[in-house]
Parts: sequence; structure tokens; C-alpha cells
Amino acid sequence: MPERERNFIAKVKIDISASAFDKINRKTKPPGSLGVLEIIAVRLAVLQETLEPTLSKKRICVYAGSHGVASEAVSAYPSEVTGQMVSNFVSGGAAINVLARHGGIDIHIIDAGVDADWPESFLSMPDFYFRSVRRGTSNFYREPAMSEVECQQALEIGREQVRDALEDGIDLLGIGEMGIGNTTAASALLVALCGLNPAQAVGRGTGIDDESFRRKVQVVAGAYERYSLACCEPAGLYWLRMVGGFEIAAMAGTLLEAARARLPVVVDGFIATAAAAAAFSIDQNCREVCFFSHRSSEQAHGKALEALKVEPLLDLKMRLGEGTGAALAMSIMEAAAKIFCEMATFESAGVSGAIGEGS
Amino acid sequence: MPERERNFIAKVKIDISASAFDKINRKTKPPGSLGVLEIIAVRLAVLQETLEPTLSKKRICVYAGSHGVASEAVSAYPSEVTGQMVSNFVSGGAAINVLARHGGIDIHIIDAGVDADWPESFLSMPDFYFRSVRRGTSNFYREPAMSEVECQQALEIGREQVRDALEDGIDLLGIGEMGIGNTTAASALLVALCGLNPAQAVGRGTGIDDESFRRKVQVVAGAYERYSLACCEPAGLYWLRMVGGFEIAAMAGTLLEAARARLPVVVDGFIATAAAAAAFSIDQNCREVCFFSHRSSEQAHGKALEALKVEPLLDLKMRLGEGTGAALAMSIMEAAAKIFCEMATFESAGVSGAIGEGS
Repeated sequence: MPERERNFIAKVKIDISASAFDKINRKTKPPGSLGVLEIIAVRLAVLQETLEPTLSKKRICVYAGSHGVASEAVSAYPSEVTGQMVSNFVSGGAAINVLARHGGIDIHIIDAGVDADWPESFLSMPDFYFRSVRRGTSNFYREPAMSEVECQQALEIGREQVRDALEDGIDLLGIGEMGIGNTTAASALLVALCGLNPAQAVGRGTGIDDESFRRKVQVVAGAYERYSLACCEPAGLYWLRMVGGFEIAAMAGTLLEAARARLPVVVDGFIATAAAAAAFSIDQNCREVCFFSHRSSEQAHGKALEALKVEPLLDLKMRLGEGTGAALAMSIMEAAAKIFCEMATFESAGVSGAIGEGS
Repeated sequence: MPERERNFIAKVKIDISASAFDKINRKTKPPGSLGVLEIIAVRLAVLQETLEPTLSKKRICVYAGSHGVASEAVSAYPSEVTGQMVSNFVSGGAAINVLARHGGIDIHIIDAGVDADWPESFLSMPDFYFRSVRRGTSNFYREPAMSEVECQQALEIGREQVRDALEDGIDLLGIGEMGIGNTTAASALLVALCGLNPAQAVGRGTGIDDESFRRKVQVVAGAYERYSLACCEPAGLYWLRMVGGFEIAAMAGTLLEAARARLPVVVDGFIATAAAAAAFSIDQNCREVCFFSHRSSEQAHGKALEALKVEPLLDLKMRLGEGTGAALAMSIMEAAAKIFCEMATFESAGVSGAIGEGS
């Protein structure tokens, strides 16, 4: 982008952000008293380049992928649960379906690489996207999870969803996932990209016992050792390929494309945060569009959020994934936008200002 | 209540709570992975005595009162703001109006003792309740805030709202407030009822400077000294009368009546928590119906919640009152009820259980 244009955009951003702060401070409330809602409102105004931000159309993309590393006995659930849960999403019975209906959010279910056969009926459903790169990654404890071409393919799956969202007039996108074994992949990514040590980065996932936990640490530490010497820039891309998952790369792709389009994205939980870590490493501009929905009870999540220097909206001890945290956070973000647009000002409501401010 | 009846009720409660935990554990998710949502769902099932709890009808009662102690220069805003904000609530322009509309919540605005004259039009509005005990409490730094009769009157204002709610088929009630000077009253209540020391219990309220802060600590400490020797049981009732507010006593009354009716109530922020502390001291059964919406950024709120041994749902650095935190929390509670009722089970969705559990 030519420098003049860049400067112009920078100036517009500052103007909007100053006007947005001014607008929120005129509302009938002590300055700052709506806390995080005020910050969200201003961020949305800047992203949408308007003083009337709106989040009326919301969508969550639930990316699913199978993981070769699941064969290392790192999960409490068998690998076929990934496909079974995708069917559950399609039938509308999973937690994300309930929470999305509650929040007025539509959902897209994307097979980014699941080891399952789908009935014909799925393939003709408008909200199901069969984009499988392969029926599961390779076991990254033994070999790279995917090839370079596959990684690009997976990123593209996520990019496509952003283009779709823009076409459909979506104001707010969310990313969530399903993939038995993917907390192991996410932990490995966070070790590599956020400097967590393996024992810190590994959690109980779906609820594993002590033996599986030790195994999981060993797998993550082993993978880091195996691949770190050959690491090349951008590290996020390299590590997605070595230890990531197709659904994780797709989420990273969503963030990369959303940053270009300046579309706000709600990042769900632990796995989605690992995808964000990869995306940030590839393009720091992703930061600006990301809203972190919640702090998961997966132990490493808090550390990952700290390492990324981001603050989540909620802390409800959830650790399910699927976009469930994103669905709850979206309602709060929508509330913030409405506060910004609908609240009266001191002037319009005839309310006195603070003492000494002259009202 | 006769012992047989009491035992019967205790047994029903245990049965429902066990069945509710069983029900939530059959849902397609690792056990406990929806964290706080699961606990809320079980609590609602127990309160509503059903395995199909519902929160479709929600209401927030916003109680307003003027405070004599405001004349001690403890607030950043002039006392007339209380009445002006009530007008703002009636016109629909305040933060609570926006958030209630967003959450599908109706609101009742209750004048429990505001120093203001209302236009005729207010008095005929169905959602406005003119129940003024007096046009503001006495300055509790100099004399008791209210008489015994007035305190009972204020409690009754809150009780009436519960009876109203039951008649209207409300599933979930919220309590919020407006009253310039009422963080000072709340701090004094928390010193007396939760053992906080005055410097811990006092915060910046609407945003006061250092001088007002020191003054506020002095007022709270002075009041505690003045009244503590004559304290009689129940302490909650005594202190409401000495240092409370009409809107605070009304909120306590709501909790007391809700406990009798087993109606779930969402407690808003710092002031509402002080009302809860008083209600708990009068009747411990109030605990069971209370859901604490959020941790306010008013510094003493976290300490008060700890002292009451309760965990709030949200932490969004809000400190506005009005029921704004309650409005946001209600949506999360409704989500919890829906999860409980609408989610598929492992059996119904054909999803495999954990390895070794036999699916």
C-alpha cells in the first residue's frame, strides 16, 4: 500500500477512535463505568469505521478435523467421536447448536479433514461444508502433521468462510472446533509459539487420567524437540504444518483473511487460541480483529492468553470448544454495540454531569 | 413447618439434584466441560423442582432512593441525578433499558424514596411504581438512616415485587438500583455485616477524588462506631435501618420474599450485594435463590463476594449498577437452562462415550 494511503487510513482510525471515546463518555453513566463493554464498543466502531456499529448478523464457523496424534492415546475419547459430533452439529443437538440458537447466531459446520463418511443428505445441506483436506492429519509425534500444500489448503478453507461471511453481510464471525486429539496439537503449538514449557502447556483435555497426561506431555515435548531445529519463518506457518490440525489451520486462515477485511472475529477457547497464536505470528494485524471469548478451564489456556497479552471476556470454567464460549461472548459484544448506539446522553436525557464539570 | 413435611421437601430436593446431575452428564460433552453453566442448570432445576427448567420470562426491578448521606460530599454527582436517572429509566434511554431490551427482559422502575416530583404521566405508567417511603433517607453519619417502621415499609416494597412477579409468571427476577450516595451506604453495610474494614469497604463509586474518598472512609468508619454498640439481631435488619437506603432495603425485601417463593434472583453489583448481605443475615435461605451476576470494579465488591462465599458469573469491570450486570448475566443463565433442556445425549445422538466407560 502506498505511504500516503497508509497514513490516511491511520488518521481515519485515530479520528474514529477519538470520536468513539467522546461518544461513549457523553452517555448517562460515570465515565468508564461500563468497563469492558465500552472498550468493545470503541473497538467495533474503529473496525466498522462508523459511530453506529452493529452486530446484528452473527455466525460461528465450527471447523472439524481428525488427528493422527490421537493414536498416541492422548484423549479420553475415541477418534471416531470427531465424526459423530459433526453429525450431532448437523442434527442440531450439540451444545453449540443450543447456544447459537439462544444467541441468534447461525453456524457453519466445516469438515476440514475428518475421518468419516457422510450421508448424501449432509452434502446438500447449506450449512455443511465438505472441504476435507485429508481424512485426518499424520501423527505429528512420528512425522509432520501435514504437507506444505495441505497446510495452504487448510488455511484457504478458513479464508473462504470470511469471503462467504462478507457476501452474506455477517457483522461478527466466531471460530470454534471439534477434533479428538486437538488439545495435544494446540499444546504443541503453544510450546513452540508462546514459549510455554510442555508440562505447562498440556492440560486434561476432555478429561484424561494421569498416565495419559504424562504421555501427552511426552508427545508434546518430543514433537517440539523433533521439529524446532528446522524452524523457519513465519514460525506460525511452520508449526501449523508440523504439529497443527486441519481445523486449526482453517481457524488461522479465518483470522488472516478477517484481518485483511477488518471483520471482527470471536476466538473461542484453548484450541482456537492456539490458532490465533499461529495467525498472529504470520500477521500481527490479526490482533486487531480478535476478541477472545473466554478463559477455558484447560489449565494452559490462561497462560496462553497471558503470553498473547490478551484479556478474555468470560471465565465460566468451560472447556468444551465447538465455539460454545464464542456464542456466549457474542451476546455481550452485541450488548456493547447497542449501548454505544442506543443509550441517551447527559444532554438528551437532561441528567446533570459530575460536580465541578459544569452540567 | 411440621418435621415430616420438612423431611419430604429435603428428600425431593436431593432427588432432583441427583437426577439433574445425571441428566447433564448424559449430554454430548465431557462431564463438567460446560463449567458454570452446568451448575446453574442444576440449581435452576432444584429451585423450579423440574428437570425442564425454563427462564423464558425475565424481569429486573430497579429500585431508586435518595440518600441523606449524599450531603457529606461523598459522591462525584449531585443528589438530583437520582431523580433524573429515574426519568431516564422511564424514557428508556439508560444503560439498563438498552441491556434489558437486548436480553428480552422487562423492567420495573420503583421509587422507594426519591427526592423528586414526578409528572402525572409517570404515575399512570404500568412499569413505574411510586412507593416512596420518604424523599430520601436521613444522613446516617448524623442519625439513623430510617425508622423501624420505614425500614419495614421499604422491605415490603421489595416483597410486593416478588408477589407481582409470581402473578405474572416471571421465571427469573433481577435486582438493581439507582441512588447517588448509595455506595457509601453499601460500604457501611459491608463493614458491619461482612467484617470488612472501612478503608477496604470504600471505593471510588461514580468516580470520586482522593479528598472525597478520605471523607467517605471517615463517614463509614464514623457510622460504624456510632451504631455498633447498640446492634441487635438480626444484624442485617438493624444495619439496614441505621445505614441503609430505601432502595437497598427494598432489594433485601425482594430476596427475603424470593427465598420463601423459591424464585431465582440475579443480584446485580456492589449495592445489590450489600442488600444480599443484609438479607442473608436475616434469612440464610436467601442464599439458595441468589445468583451473583458479576464482580464490579468497585474495589470492595470482590472482597464482599468473598466474605459471602459466593462466586459471580461475570467480571467485566463494570460499576454502574441499575441492574446492568444482572441483565447480562440473565442471558447466560437462560443459556444454561436451554443447554439442560435442549442438548442431545450420547445415546440419542449416537456418540461414543469415553474410552473404558463402554459406550
